[in-house]
Amino acid sequence: MSHEVHGALYNGVPKPPFELSYPDNPDAITDNLMKLADLAPDVRDKFLLKNLITHLHAFVKETSLSSDEWLKAIKFLTSVGHTTTNIRQEFMLLSDVMGVSALVDAINFPPGHGGTESTILGPFHTDDAPDIEQGQSIASEGKGEYMYIEGRVLSSDGTPISNATIESWETDSNGYYDTQYVNREKADLRGRLRTDKDGHFGFRAIVPVAYPIPGDGPVGQLLLAVGRHNMRPNHIHLIVEAPGFRKLITMFYPEGDTWLESDAVFAVKKSLVVKLQEVNDEAEARKRGFPKGSSFKLLQRDVILVPEKQADLKQ
Amino acid sequence: MSHEVHGALYNGVPKPPFELSYPDNPDAITDNLMKLADLAPDVRDKFLLKNLITHLHAFVKETSLSSDEWLKAIKFLTSVGHTTTNIRQEFMLLSDVMGVSALVDAINFPPGHGGTESTILGPFHTDDAPDIEQGQSIASEGKGEYMYIEGRVLSSDGTPISNATIESWETDSNGYYDTQYVNREKADLRGRLRTDKDGHFGFRAIVPVAYPIPGDGPVGQLLLAVGRHNMRPNHIHLIVEAPGFRKLITMFYPEGDTWLESDAVFAVKKSLVVKLQEVNDEAEARKRGFPKGSSFKLLQRDVILVPEKQADLKQ
Repeated sequence: MSHEVHGALYNGVPKPPFELSYPDNPDAITDNLMKLADLAPDVRDKFLLKNLITHLHAFVKETSLSSDEWLKAIKFLTSVGHTTTNIRQEFMLLSDVMGVSALVDAINFPPGHGGTESTILGPFHTDDAPDIEQGQSIASEGKGEYMYIEGRVLSSDGTPISNATIESWETDSNGYYDTQYVNREKADLRGRLRTDKDGHFGFRAIVPVAYPIPGDGPVGQLLLAVGRHNMRPNHIHLIVEAPGFRKLITMFYPEGDTWLESDAVFAVKKSLVVKLQEVNDEAEARKRGFPKGSSFKLLQRDVILVPEKQADLKQ
Repeated sequence: MSHEVHGALYNGVPKPPFELSYPDNPDAITDNLMKLADLAPDVRDKFLLKNLITHLHAFVKETSLSSDEWLKAIKFLTSVGHTTTNIRQEFMLLSDVMGVSALVDAINFPPGHGGTESTILGPFHTDDAPDIEQGQSIASEGKGEYMYIEGRVLSSDGTPISNATIESWETDSNGYYDTQYVNREKADLRGRLRTDKDGHFGFRAIVPVAYPIPGDGPVGQLLLAVGRHNMRPNHIHLIVEAPGFRKLITMFYPEGDTWLESDAVFAVKKSLVVKLQEVNDEAEARKRGFPKGSSFKLLQRDVILVPEKQADLKQ
């Protein structure tokens, strides 16, 4: 055979050094999987694998999953995979709507140590947010109602943190991230800046709006099939980082939104709900770089980072 | 905005008609998911969803899954999705190596009623197996050592079933299915025939060989990482169908293979291990359509189908 083949080569691992029974019945199948999991060279992998097998097999057994349901699941996962591209992460969205992303966040970043609470990253983060200066806007003109967001980045002991990086992203007033536009050419409604020597930051953005998570893919279809709405309350994303501090991934949610308590991705924490002030003062608007005659909403909020050493301590 | 966007439309489902607490901690997240699952209009969907949430969340909590491990899982699933094409089903392969396919088969088609035991479909079934006549070959010339497989399709009460459909597929002697060749133009080592009026069937094929499941994708990498070999023992696939009988998906495994007891996809049942006879009789070879001077292996085995009505009864 000289034709090119998709590689299917023996991986060189020998037969297991113990006896396995023929997997003739459900429990024998699970037993064989659990025995084989002992071959995993890494202790953590082995633990994860055994726990995964236990729950995955229990799900199939406890539900007596039918062959048709199994095939539907295979097709669903395939569709999720085929919907995922370099700018759309449908598996993250699936993890989000199943509460798994929120759970991983809650377990890995429990509140405490006085830091600003974290929440999930979401599927719309990109790597191409442009650097901006203090006072500049992350949004091109005409994308929504003006908002200014300002505050300080502080250590949990109150010390200002200079030169901290703040990355922020949000949708336009139609509820779409730049990546959702088919003809996206460059980043918009995204930006990255650094705090000044006193830990201050301030930048222009737009007032966040509530928006639906993508409904044109398998995850959207799933929500509809199980009777769940697909809305997220208004929010702006932030990642705040400084050397020696635990990286903070979070969002701020302006109060009053109708979807705050039933966020489709379970990412709202009470401490992250913020107040916006309406500012109708020409001088304040001009000071912050908005055009003559503008009014704007002001979001004032400090961000508290936890020193890495402290974050590692259990409270 | 006149630009085309990837659809993200509100699906029209209202806010849930009950209160949810802010998902500020792991148990609140799980509670919210479970409450929302009650909105699923279909009772079976609701049951599946609740069981899935229970096990999925328990896995994350019991393992304290780290953010990095979560991201690795997202990337793994994405890679499985991107490896899946219309002729390669990496999600089925994943289900196979995790024992899930075998489990679904064992639960849905428990042994009993006197029928031939079933096993998994595997990821290499296609829809384009050609129709052949009795005595013809499913393999083009030169694909491996000659084998003849013959027997009768019978009802579990012993009545021959005429006009039953038998579809069969296997790898060539290098261990590759036709779909694994990059330049596949048409089906090979696949065929479909019907039993005669006495339930007899017979067709030419090749002696099955042990082969590795694809190792060049994420599932292959997973097996290597957890110390498992990727071999399947020698086998030939069969789907046998007749009106009024439960469809049978199975495989026959010639005895003596070194991988029989540790099949990478947990699909060997003891009753499916078969004996091959070496036939060195010119007349027998010619009678079955093999070229002059050929010897061949003979697989004689009846296939027993269970009437649908009987299959529905619990034993």
